[in-house]
Amino acid sequence: MGKCCVVPGCNEPGVAERLAVLLGCSIARVYRKRFPDGELYVRVEDGIGRDSTVLIVNTMYPRQDHSFVETLLLVDAVARMGAGKIIAIIPYIAYSRQDKVFMKGEPVSIEVLLRSLSVAGATHLVTVDIHNPSSLEHFSGWRYNLLVSDLLVEKSLEYLENPVVIAPDKGALERALHAARTLGLEYDYLVKKRDRVSGEVSLEPKEISVNGRDVVIVDDIISTGGTIALAAKKCLDSGAKRVVVAATHSLLISNALKKIVDAGVYKLITTNSIPLIARNDFIQVVDLSERIADTIKSIT
Amino acid sequence: MGKCCVVPGCNEPGVAERLAVLLGCSIARVYRKRFPDGELYVRVEDGIGRDSTVLIVNTMYPRQDHSFVETLLLVDAVARMGAGKIIAIIPYIAYSRQDKVFMKGEPVSIEVLLRSLSVAGATHLVTVDIHNPSSLEHFSGWRYNLLVSDLLVEKSLEYLENPVVIAPDKGALERALHAARTLGLEYDYLVKKRDRVSGEVSLEPKEISVNGRDVVIVDDIISTGGTIALAAKKCLDSGAKRVVVAATHSLLISNALKKIVDAGVYKLITTNSIPLIARNDFIQVVDLSERIADTIKSIT
Repeated sequence: MGKCCVVPGCNEPGVAERLAVLLGCSIARVYRKRFPDGELYVRVEDGIGRDSTVLIVNTMYPRQDHSFVETLLLVDAVARMGAGKIIAIIPYIAYSRQDKVFMKGEPVSIEVLLRSLSVAGATHLVTVDIHNPSSLEHFSGWRYNLLVSDLLVEKSLEYLENPVVIAPDKGALERALHAARTLGLEYDYLVKKRDRVSGEVSLEPKEISVNGRDVVIVDDIISTGGTIALAAKKCLDSGAKRVVVAATHSLLISNALKKIVDAGVYKLITTNSIPLIARNDFIQVVDLSERIADTIKSIT
Repeated sequence: MGKCCVVPGCNEPGVAERLAVLLGCSIARVYRKRFPDGELYVRVEDGIGRDSTVLIVNTMYPRQDHSFVETLLLVDAVARMGAGKIIAIIPYIAYSRQDKVFMKGEPVSIEVLLRSLSVAGATHLVTVDIHNPSSLEHFSGWRYNLLVSDLLVEKSLEYLENPVVIAPDKGALERALHAARTLGLEYDYLVKKRDRVSGEVSLEPKEISVNGRDVVIVDDIISTGGTIALAAKKCLDSGAKRVVVAATHSLLISNALKKIVDAGVYKLITTNSIPLIARNDFIQVVDLSERIADTIKSIT
């Protein structure tokens, strides 16, 4: 792929080094500081060859706004150094859930971010399991969204036997489907059901009984953990043997982890799309570097 | 100017209400919150008439990156509501000092911000005393930079008698010149001079003696206050009677105010371009609303 260079952002979640090795790129040093007034200063300290390929690796959690601004500044800096392809690799992209006007007067925040990245000079964009892949049309260059639910569910097979892949709602079905088809598993999603006799409303798989079965619940983002904890609890209430949660981006806000543990989940399988605060035996992290490297190879 | 609406940003420094009165605009309520993960949510709660003029008033200190993102989101939101002219009024615009590549590998941060504002949908941009007015060419719509040193120096005449208007360096000369010409005063800038006999280096006005004269020092930004405190001290060392500092944007980081007081400055005259933390008899604030309103009238 010719001369290439990896430029790590401040939030780089631990994929930059391995990416560089896998792709045979150098890693640029970035000098960064905040001025006393709070403004960010960045400088790419190593030369970027003219027309070379530059991979800017950053992620937008935590400190979404800072990471966004830093990414724009890094793109601008390497563009001025003469970079040819500028590939922004942003495994977790913030504001992706505000992907349409839900109520009048709202912005489409993800569109704003992606258009800014384009205009700053990024020619390519790679995201991982973005909330709504069609948002990527607002980036004017080449873009690719990596689906990784197959990686996560494959990892879950270390703990589960012939599990049912469950999406917590219909919106997340695509992820369950992708993993289930790749690995030859059954899949379904949870729906609200009303008992004909008692009138009670419950959350259950639409088609498949999980009674006596292992379950892996797939989702994109765990924020405060409420949705996923409820889904896990409902599967166990319906007789599931063991429940593993497979989520791409584990933000784990406040006591999300406790909620998930308390719901009876056996393991949480996630990726290094963001810098994880908690790491323990309960959380299993699947490295994204190889999958990202394969994608980059296909475009360079 | 037809139907118009003022949309205040989170950092609105106290000009929005008076602007609305002066221009006969309504003020929109903005609902804003941060999600638990730190993402900003905004919604303009009042209707924006189709093809109406919308003034988004925000400033980019403090919390530069947050204010920048909020401004982009507000611009996008009102664009989707059908606003005709979208005038971003940003009295203090962050990152304006990174207006060129000083060292290889740096971005031109101000260009990145202004291009993002354009692509988000802002059609007009009004700034106040931006560090380098030529930066504004990176905003693709109509733009105007308000010079206000005349207002500040005019205010200083309440305390000074026929003062010399002094720029702390050649780069700030334009501001001194603007005020001096408008008000019929003498002006000069400070330069380093070496004593022919002792070899000592001092900072002195290039042409005019300030001995026995009142002095008003004009500058755009007071950040940590070092430059302006030194300039004031040098003028007093050179025999100035009374020194007033007139600076548009008073960030006053850490102990800047103390430095300025300790240097022997009589008053600090500034504007409400940013929300001021300290307000006391020493700091005199000139309201920008009328000057901004006059500019808006000229373009609508």
